Amino acid sequence: MKRSMGAKTLLYPTPAIVICTYDIDGKPNAMTAAWVGIVCSQPPCVGVSLRKATYTYGAMERRRAFTVNIPSEEFVEKVDFFGMTSGRDVNKLERAGLTTVDSVLVDAPYIKEFPVVLECKVINIVEIGLHTQFIGEIVDVKMEETTLDEDGASSMKRVNPFIYAPDDRSYYSIGSKLAEGFTVGRSLKKE
Amino acid sequence: MKRSMGAKTLLYPTPAIVICTYDIDGKPNAMTAAWVGIVCSQPPCVGVSLRKATYTYGAMERRRAFTVNIPSEEFVEKVDFFGMTSGRDVNKLERAGLTTVDSVLVDAPYIKEFPVVLECKVINIVEIGLHTQFIGEIVDVKMEETTLDEDGASSMKRVNPFIYAPDDRSYYSIGSKLAEGFTVGRSLKKE
Repeated sequence: MKRSMGAKTLLYPTPAIVICTYDIDGKPNAMTAAWVGIVCSQPPCVGVSLRKATYTYGAMERRRAFTVNIPSEEFVEKVDFFGMTSGRDVNKLERAGLTTVDSVLVDAPYIKEFPVVLECKVINIVEIGLHTQFIGEIVDVKMEETTLDEDGASSMKRVNPFIYAPDDRSYYSIGSKLAEGFTVGRSLKKE
Repeated sequence: MKRSMGAKTLLYPTPAIVICTYDIDGKPNAMTAAWVGIVCSQPPCVGVSLRKATYTYGAMERRRAFTVNIPSEEFVEKVDFFGMTSGRDVNKLERAGLTTVDSVLVDAPYIKEFPVVLECKVINIVEIGLHTQFIGEIVDVKMEETTLDEDGASSMKRVNPFIYAPDDRSYYSIGSKLAEGFTVGRSLKKE
């Protein structure tokens, strides 16, 4: 039996992502976002939803660029901090002891210590309501060589990212492999 | 040292979600999607990116409605099947042995056996490239009572959803709690 929970923003699982931008003075800033996702394959695009009140909103509107930084578990404390404080008040990256690299492809910095970065150019801004969605074309993905497998392919297990759960406002690890895609469902296809 | 991987759609983690719609004849259909995410808090909205070639695309364009069905691990075989076959060729829900319920709020069906459903009305269609993003206002979330905790609150652990990893095209479980949000990062805030 299902119970109505009302109109709310519940979806499992959501990623724990750090968005980096330059502010008006060129100071690198970082914010944590869970409402981030791939939205198109050609061109490859990612969508990031932000409230106008955030410091990052103004930065993305002016610079038309951002980076999506995927953390591994060891950075959970810093990721949580980036979601608790505004870049208006403090240099969050400096406080967290992280190094920024200036992207040569887009007008935004990225975090050297994080294993994966997507460098993005804003190609569309969609007004929805309290949140605005910035659609960024992914011009390059860069990954730490230690997170690639023997064939040079990306490996989620080696990146070791984590999840944010909205209901208990906690971070969760990724568990073990459950099944192979495009394989486990084949028996139903053939019935 | 980071290696350039090129412009590609890589993000961790992505959810494993089933979108349900009615086709032109009123037949319920299900498709698996990973490019689904919350995009706004007020009104609460979810974005779903689809290629025009999918059967669901036409259904969503005509009916201006869909449901987001969150599966638990036990349904991984059916979820995989929904991503392998088109509703043009087969009644996928019937083949998978699942029951559909007609939403009374939106012009779309949902899956009775899945633990969570978001009932959505399409309020915006954003052309991006090969994919089009449908933005749906979430008019209600319904959850199985067994997935709620003692206080009637939603619980990800009880829902037991899973993840899709793009690099090895496999499904993964959600692991254990890593840290509490808005807590673990406090030490950096106070420094």
